[in-house]
Amino acid sequence: MSKFFSQKYSALTPYVPGEQPKDMQYIKLNTNESPFPPTEAVAAAVASESAKLQLYSDPECVELRAKFAKIYGIGTDQVIMTNGSDEVLNFAFMAFADDAHPLAFADITYGFYPVFAQLNNIPYEEIPLASDFSIKAQDYIGIGKTVVIANPNAPTGLCQPLSDIEEIVKSNPDNVVIIDEAYVDFGGESAVSLINKYDNLLVTGTFSKSRSMAGARLGFGIANASLIADLNTVKYSTNPYNVNRMTAAAGCAVLNENELYMANCRTIMQNREWTTCELSRLGFEVLPSKTNFVFAKSSRIGGENLYLALKERGILVRHFKKERIKDYNRITIGTAEQMQALISAIECILEEKTL
Amino acid sequence: MSKFFSQKYSALTPYVPGEQPKDMQYIKLNTNESPFPPTEAVAAAVASESAKLQLYSDPECVELRAKFAKIYGIGTDQVIMTNGSDEVLNFAFMAFADDAHPLAFADITYGFYPVFAQLNNIPYEEIPLASDFSIKAQDYIGIGKTVVIANPNAPTGLCQPLSDIEEIVKSNPDNVVIIDEAYVDFGGESAVSLINKYDNLLVTGTFSKSRSMAGARLGFGIANASLIADLNTVKYSTNPYNVNRMTAAAGCAVLNENELYMANCRTIMQNREWTTCELSRLGFEVLPSKTNFVFAKSSRIGGENLYLALKERGILVRHFKKERIKDYNRITIGTAEQMQALISAIECILEEKTL
Repeated sequence: MSKFFSQKYSALTPYVPGEQPKDMQYIKLNTNESPFPPTEAVAAAVASESAKLQLYSDPECVELRAKFAKIYGIGTDQVIMTNGSDEVLNFAFMAFADDAHPLAFADITYGFYPVFAQLNNIPYEEIPLASDFSIKAQDYIGIGKTVVIANPNAPTGLCQPLSDIEEIVKSNPDNVVIIDEAYVDFGGESAVSLINKYDNLLVTGTFSKSRSMAGARLGFGIANASLIADLNTVKYSTNPYNVNRMTAAAGCAVLNENELYMANCRTIMQNREWTTCELSRLGFEVLPSKTNFVFAKSSRIGGENLYLALKERGILVRHFKKERIKDYNRITIGTAEQMQALISAIECILEEKTL
Repeated sequence: MSKFFSQKYSALTPYVPGEQPKDMQYIKLNTNESPFPPTEAVAAAVASESAKLQLYSDPECVELRAKFAKIYGIGTDQVIMTNGSDEVLNFAFMAFADDAHPLAFADITYGFYPVFAQLNNIPYEEIPLASDFSIKAQDYIGIGKTVVIANPNAPTGLCQPLSDIEEIVKSNPDNVVIIDEAYVDFGGESAVSLINKYDNLLVTGTFSKSRSMAGARLGFGIANASLIADLNTVKYSTNPYNVNRMTAAAGCAVLNENELYMANCRTIMQNREWTTCELSRLGFEVLPSKTNFVFAKSSRIGGENLYLALKERGILVRHFKKERIKDYNRITIGTAEQMQALISAIECILEEKTL
């Protein structure tokens, strides 16, 4: 830290992205990316757009929002497009949380929430998940804080029923409730259906997982027009051209073939069920996932040891050192072949241990 | 504003991007874009990258920084790549300014500085430019604040000599001095040569103007490694994947042909000199510009009236309503043909007025 660095950030602990080692070709099951590349239509749209790169992008994302709103059955003034869903989350923390509206989120959830809270100097409460890692809805009912819930949650993969979410939203009318649906397309139940009923509900999402666009950075927020207008005030004070030309073009091309990407999600869900069965057969405890990853532990090998042994065999999974979850690994669901390779590798590792 | 919007931003006045009307095809001389599209090599690099969009981008931008550092003659740890230069400016305001280190910048300069200051709740002083719109270096010498100077400045186009910049940096050893060189490639003198001499100097820049990439969002900060590390702390707490795959690939492709883009800058400088002569011939007062725009006023027609009359004729320039500069228009330098069209249109407008 230089002597010039502002005191207010001196205690800031930045987010740590999943590792991306370049020493060899890994099977990457550590950052919840889709194993399916986008189609040729995306490459064509992006190449055509790159001939106009000398011109600024449309800060209002008019075409993209129109396509998006049609698919989601909402108004174009009920959505904001952002530079990944990290950006809409940061904007929402800025806009809707402060000393008078502190934050509440789970102790085990997306690691960026406490970072954004620290970054914006917002007090926050981490509410412990139940012993089965589910969210205890009653902890949030009438809590009187700005609530953030990843649903389905990460890294657990568990999904909370929509009735719980609605109770939480309804019982906190003076605070915004943010439902982070980054993983909802893999079997979760979306809260978007509730945005016209509650003026304090913001749903966020991303094209990174279900729509194969992690490398393009496209996220969104869905809410009533008044909350979206507030988020736009923050956007136009931060990063008006937050969605660049190529990302906007890629987003439009993906939405043109939306059904294809949703079919990819169903394939991943099948691979997830297969992987869950296989891991269970090998004695793992696997949390019931509604995401594109599983969270699993084995009594036969520690979380970090399994992570290291898999890495040695060219397979990356994600291990968190946090005490409560250090026995687990978060394993992204890839293609059928990748998951077969994973299971074979784990079988070898467990056999070697037994010898 | 919704009832949920945080009080701390209630007085925030967002930045207003240049207009992008879609009612007809305009000659766009209002947002300082390059008139030259990037080459085929950029389209090819971007299309190839878009087949890997399902994978996150490299948060460290290793390849891009390596190419960049080589061209600028700096170490790879002396540069951070960002989502446009707006992002590095915002990061720098966050990292290096606060109540104890308030900001100082000119009264007439890039309109985003006061917005970023308000956004981050940083006190700021606006220091009036001299009557000829130049920066009075003595106003900043030993000021004991975090200084931000656009050099060349916008919307005036004027460039301050490097000796002035060095005096300001040297005389404020306890504060960071940020030199925003968005327009330096059009004839300015860069302060990058000073970064190894002063630990409190940060130079920012962008690929938007001189490298035809406004629509891709690529900016950078150059400083000693310690300041860059601080900026990375903010980046990893805000937006780790801030440069997406396609933008990084486009940036690499542009740097591979850097000389071509620098030749484009020289063409624009020639067109600028021609435009300046022609406007002078028509009685305009034109500030001596080192940028890709000119700032000009005429005693024969008011600033807003000229802007409106040009718009009616399909030519967009930028007019600011701010009292001190309301007689002027900022006119982006485009191709020779575009500038001829501009001069012809102004001739017609002035003739019609005389009739």
